[in-house]
Amino acid sequence: MLIFVGLGLYDEMDISIKGLETIKRSKKVFVEFYTSKMMGTTIDRLEKFYGKDIELLGREDIEIRPDKIIETARNKDVAFLCAGDPMIATTHIDLRIRAEDAGVKTRIIHGSSIQTAVIGLSGLQNYKFGRSTTIPRPYKNIIAESPYDVFKNNLDNNLHTLFLLDISDEPMTINEGLKILLNISDKRKDYKFKDNLCVGIARAGSDNPVVKADFIKDILDYNFGPPLHTFILPAKLHFMEKEALIRFAKAPKEILTKET
Amino acid sequence: MLIFVGLGLYDEMDISIKGLETIKRSKKVFVEFYTSKMMGTTIDRLEKFYGKDIELLGREDIEIRPDKIIETARNKDVAFLCAGDPMIATTHIDLRIRAEDAGVKTRIIHGSSIQTAVIGLSGLQNYKFGRSTTIPRPYKNIIAESPYDVFKNNLDNNLHTLFLLDISDEPMTINEGLKILLNISDKRKDYKFKDNLCVGIARAGSDNPVVKADFIKDILDYNFGPPLHTFILPAKLHFMEKEALIRFAKAPKEILTKET
Repeated sequence: MLIFVGLGLYDEMDISIKGLETIKRSKKVFVEFYTSKMMGTTIDRLEKFYGKDIELLGREDIEIRPDKIIETARNKDVAFLCAGDPMIATTHIDLRIRAEDAGVKTRIIHGSSIQTAVIGLSGLQNYKFGRSTTIPRPYKNIIAESPYDVFKNNLDNNLHTLFLLDISDEPMTINEGLKILLNISDKRKDYKFKDNLCVGIARAGSDNPVVKADFIKDILDYNFGPPLHTFILPAKLHFMEKEALIRFAKAPKEILTKET
Repeated sequence: MLIFVGLGLYDEMDISIKGLETIKRSKKVFVEFYTSKMMGTTIDRLEKFYGKDIELLGREDIEIRPDKIIETARNKDVAFLCAGDPMIATTHIDLRIRAEDAGVKTRIIHGSSIQTAVIGLSGLQNYKFGRSTTIPRPYKNIIAESPYDVFKNNLDNNLHTLFLLDISDEPMTINEGLKILLNISDKRKDYKFKDNLCVGIARAGSDNPVVKADFIKDILDYNFGPPLHTFILPAKLHFMEKEALIRFAKAPKEILTKET
């Protein structure tokens, strides 16, 4: 059986008891860190904590040569580890379809995910979030504009937008992500964009996550410290959301009276 | 310090190591099960597994008399347990604001959540989900129509909708939830509603979650077994999503050729 185990958000202590026991019982343990990363730990520390050797897989091992993983799982339990909750990345879904097509059973052990963690950390309300999106790093100077479109469409529907940030090469910072969006808004002459509120979140799941809200123009150069970073551009806020942002994210108090 | 600890999805093994250690270190442990429930365990089993006495709180203990919790947390570490990832319910946000306003520090230990678990279990793609919604049980024969509006608006934007189901009194089944939506669609003469695909998910996080996709008219009386239940009404599907639904959710193969 191929068992997808979510490691949760930050370090080796974020895995569930069920996940840990699954790893201990498995005959072989793989991990991938290209769809997300565990910034509070290392493979060495994971191996010590879980008491198992772990083989790190690259994108090609999974997307081009998945047979090795699938055949290893044919007659024994294999744990496939990844940060967060598994299957959020399409590459996991693809591997799972291939495994089941090859007659290898699969299972998922869930983990905590940035998708819901940001809701708790910010105090914003779950049912007010629209579609989320990822900002890729510009490639050959071409900036993908779809994250901006997702934001505008959510805003039209009065919904908050969660922005996940590219982690290939180096993890993107909130500052970089905002500047990419600002570049797009300038190109579209949407000069009011920088008056929107932004809630930046760094190191979710760690002992000291940073959660800071301010207007985009005032938060552009804020130092959020080490990665991973993510941010929310909220739509119109409910009164309790404003209270929460002031309390948990040091938002400027003028949001209480200002139409945001 | 008041530490909100997410217990995850189903039983006592879904908590993170970090959450378990927090409970063991805490001087007092509260739990609430009115915003969500852990169907695979009981408070007795939680107490045995965590090695701590746990006090069950009702809605009024939290919303009307929160001072007891806050004052208990003033000079010692208090763990406040709930199913899933904390703070998804507004009642937790409110408690956290009140605690911080009273000068009591708070922290969140994240847990796995139905919000991302359904994505992994169904094989649908995260960035294609719009706003989620909850179907309340009709009160004095009045049916709240907002969940239907959320679905229609998501559909207009080609986004999937996750429906969470009322758990007050008895947990609502997928069948009940669908019949409530069908009632609204009939009232609006939206007779095509029942030709939409539905992905029902029962007992996420357990050893044997049921994931079953079919057209609403064909799944209305399907027996999903014991709660908790939830379902997704997908928008237009990507080819890989169709493959995943056939493989993981026994969707009828005609969705491959049919415009869904």
